[in-house]
Amino acid sequence: MKFDFLMPVKIVSGAENFQNAIEDIQKMGSRCLIITGKCSAKKSGAFADATLLLEKAGVDYDLFDEISENPTLQSCREAGKKAIDFSADFLYGIGGGSAMDATRAAAIFVSNPDISDEDLFANKWNNNPVKFILTGTTAGTGSEVTPNTVLTQQNGRKRAVSHPDLYAALALVDHKYVASMSKDTAMSTALDALSHTLEGYLNPSCTDISAHFAEKAISMIWENLIAIDDGDYQEDEILSELYYGSLWAGFILNAQGTAFPHPLGYILTEDFDIPHGRACATFLPALIKNAYSVKDESPQTAIKLVLLQAITGCSVEQICEKITNFANTSHIRMTAQQVRQYSQRWNGLKNFDRVPNKYTLQQAIDLFNELFVS
Amino acid sequence: MKFDFLMPVKIVSGAENFQNAIEDIQKMGSRCLIITGKCSAKKSGAFADATLLLEKAGVDYDLFDEISENPTLQSCREAGKKAIDFSADFLYGIGGGSAMDATRAAAIFVSNPDISDEDLFANKWNNNPVKFILTGTTAGTGSEVTPNTVLTQQNGRKRAVSHPDLYAALALVDHKYVASMSKDTAMSTALDALSHTLEGYLNPSCTDISAHFAEKAISMIWENLIAIDDGDYQEDEILSELYYGSLWAGFILNAQGTAFPHPLGYILTEDFDIPHGRACATFLPALIKNAYSVKDESPQTAIKLVLLQAITGCSVEQICEKITNFANTSHIRMTAQQVRQYSQRWNGLKNFDRVPNKYTLQQAIDLFNELFVS
Repeated sequence: MKFDFLMPVKIVSGAENFQNAIEDIQKMGSRCLIITGKCSAKKSGAFADATLLLEKAGVDYDLFDEISENPTLQSCREAGKKAIDFSADFLYGIGGGSAMDATRAAAIFVSNPDISDEDLFANKWNNNPVKFILTGTTAGTGSEVTPNTVLTQQNGRKRAVSHPDLYAALALVDHKYVASMSKDTAMSTALDALSHTLEGYLNPSCTDISAHFAEKAISMIWENLIAIDDGDYQEDEILSELYYGSLWAGFILNAQGTAFPHPLGYILTEDFDIPHGRACATFLPALIKNAYSVKDESPQTAIKLVLLQAITGCSVEQICEKITNFANTSHIRMTAQQVRQYSQRWNGLKNFDRVPNKYTLQQAIDLFNELFVS
Repeated sequence: MKFDFLMPVKIVSGAENFQNAIEDIQKMGSRCLIITGKCSAKKSGAFADATLLLEKAGVDYDLFDEISENPTLQSCREAGKKAIDFSADFLYGIGGGSAMDATRAAAIFVSNPDISDEDLFANKWNNNPVKFILTGTTAGTGSEVTPNTVLTQQNGRKRAVSHPDLYAALALVDHKYVASMSKDTAMSTALDALSHTLEGYLNPSCTDISAHFAEKAISMIWENLIAIDDGDYQEDEILSELYYGSLWAGFILNAQGTAFPHPLGYILTEDFDIPHGRACATFLPALIKNAYSVKDESPQTAIKLVLLQAITGCSVEQICEKITNFANTSHIRMTAQQVRQYSQRWNGLKNFDRVPNKYTLQQAIDLFNELFVS
């Protein structure tokens, strides 16, 4: 049995309980920089709750609200600089995956203002990042419970940093904050959570803990994808399942990392403006089919596919078809030459090994050709 | 949805993977005191693996092997003193719940050698406890993943300390270490794990996370209790289910604490020499019946009882009967006066509130009279 585990974030759920964390907050210091994007933190009510809480804790705060979707390294450096100028002891990131990922990177820059991009991506910082709190306002990223941050470099390409120093000290979570999500955001973020779940579940290194989490996450996310598709996802119970489903998925992402759908998805986000979750989900059918192809040799994979079908109430074919429809990327077109160029970025990626039959570069090229080259 | 969570211990499973933790160990320091009881650490092979690992990590170590079952405060103070004399940077506890609980207490004494018993039980220490590693050799306590230690005071009474400072930095776990358990130990520790599970599951404050864990733990522990009862538990797969089932149960204990069976059980251990797990399990039927009595008002409890019956394949009555047989304490006899005396210790215990219908002192007295007074 594989029982490896590390998820040291303290989660407090329900805004009415956040005050139970006041002592934890006070231990972090007396000055805090809140880091958000332009909208969701305020629109969701999370910003108001956060400032009230900081006031109750006797913490002075300032705001940096210039994090955009797919946050740039540069904006994280600026957030770090503002935190230093404000003498912030700790940070508080509020928003979707972008604001939370940016907070994680900014925490490194506060303690290591002169670190080079290369040293950052190589996990080479001299001083521990400052502590930070996270509150999510979308139901997908799982960033509240992972030590990962995905940043956009100056060349426009996404790159990930992951390190145990980058866990939040505290995640203050409430599903009511995701009520402000648009239908497009709800669909894309739910597909992101589904990707984290399936990429982890079908990973041959999936621990028994992650597998048990995945079965819960699938049951919480799957039927609500259909509710979102119908535009009918604003009920409290659905939002709750979507949000906490995304945290279960975050637990899996934290333990297992992602497989090939994630790096392949980056291309669709960077060059075709497809939101992250839809971009990754585009490649889930290939992931599922890869697992299906080994079911006769791998009883473990076979059992997972049986459970996946039982939980969703759909056959493997139906699951793949529905995900393809939800992802809605079949209009994308590119040339075979573009595909060859993209494929240079996939060389040596660990993500390709995290499937029952290691995925080859050629398989990824063939997949892109099949999906996008006419 | 209740999604509160804190379990910061890093778990590495499988002795063949322990070397992956060498960097973590080296960060803890270069000198380590190993804390064990007389037997199980060595008999199980865990001690040999631990010393090999410490040698690989370049850590000097010494041994304190004088922890007895139901560890005394005094022995923990002695372990702390030995660690100080050895200039240990960190501790490594190997054994059942006793050795692991003792290590937790010793970690406080190393950093706070002059702390009074009262300050210890009031969580009033000035310096952070030193870091420690834990390895379990029984399948019940869950001590690897909780911040609790139960110590026996000079007056012979057990008392608990629980604090977030008392999580292990690292749990190095392998189910093969529990292969050395006697049948009696296997039964009692499995019943302890079942108690942690059911006391948490039927707690009205049970989080959605704990409930999902509990359903897994019950499925792993229940059928193997029967295997133990038959003396037929040495198969690798059964030991694996028992051990990792006890860790799932530990996750629940960590999140929910215990209900009334635990403090009632202390009496049977202290004055009637009943091992801890059997002692607590003696009161599980009363816990289950208490939950059953509210099933019409509490849909949440009703669903849990349905799932409990589905997972065990037994009716509530059958479950209670089997647990009573496993606990095997019906021979205990005491006077009504003794019961009245014991009941003075239960006044104001939080454990009594952690059931759907708060348990009253009078109910506990009646239960003792029914079970033990002829």
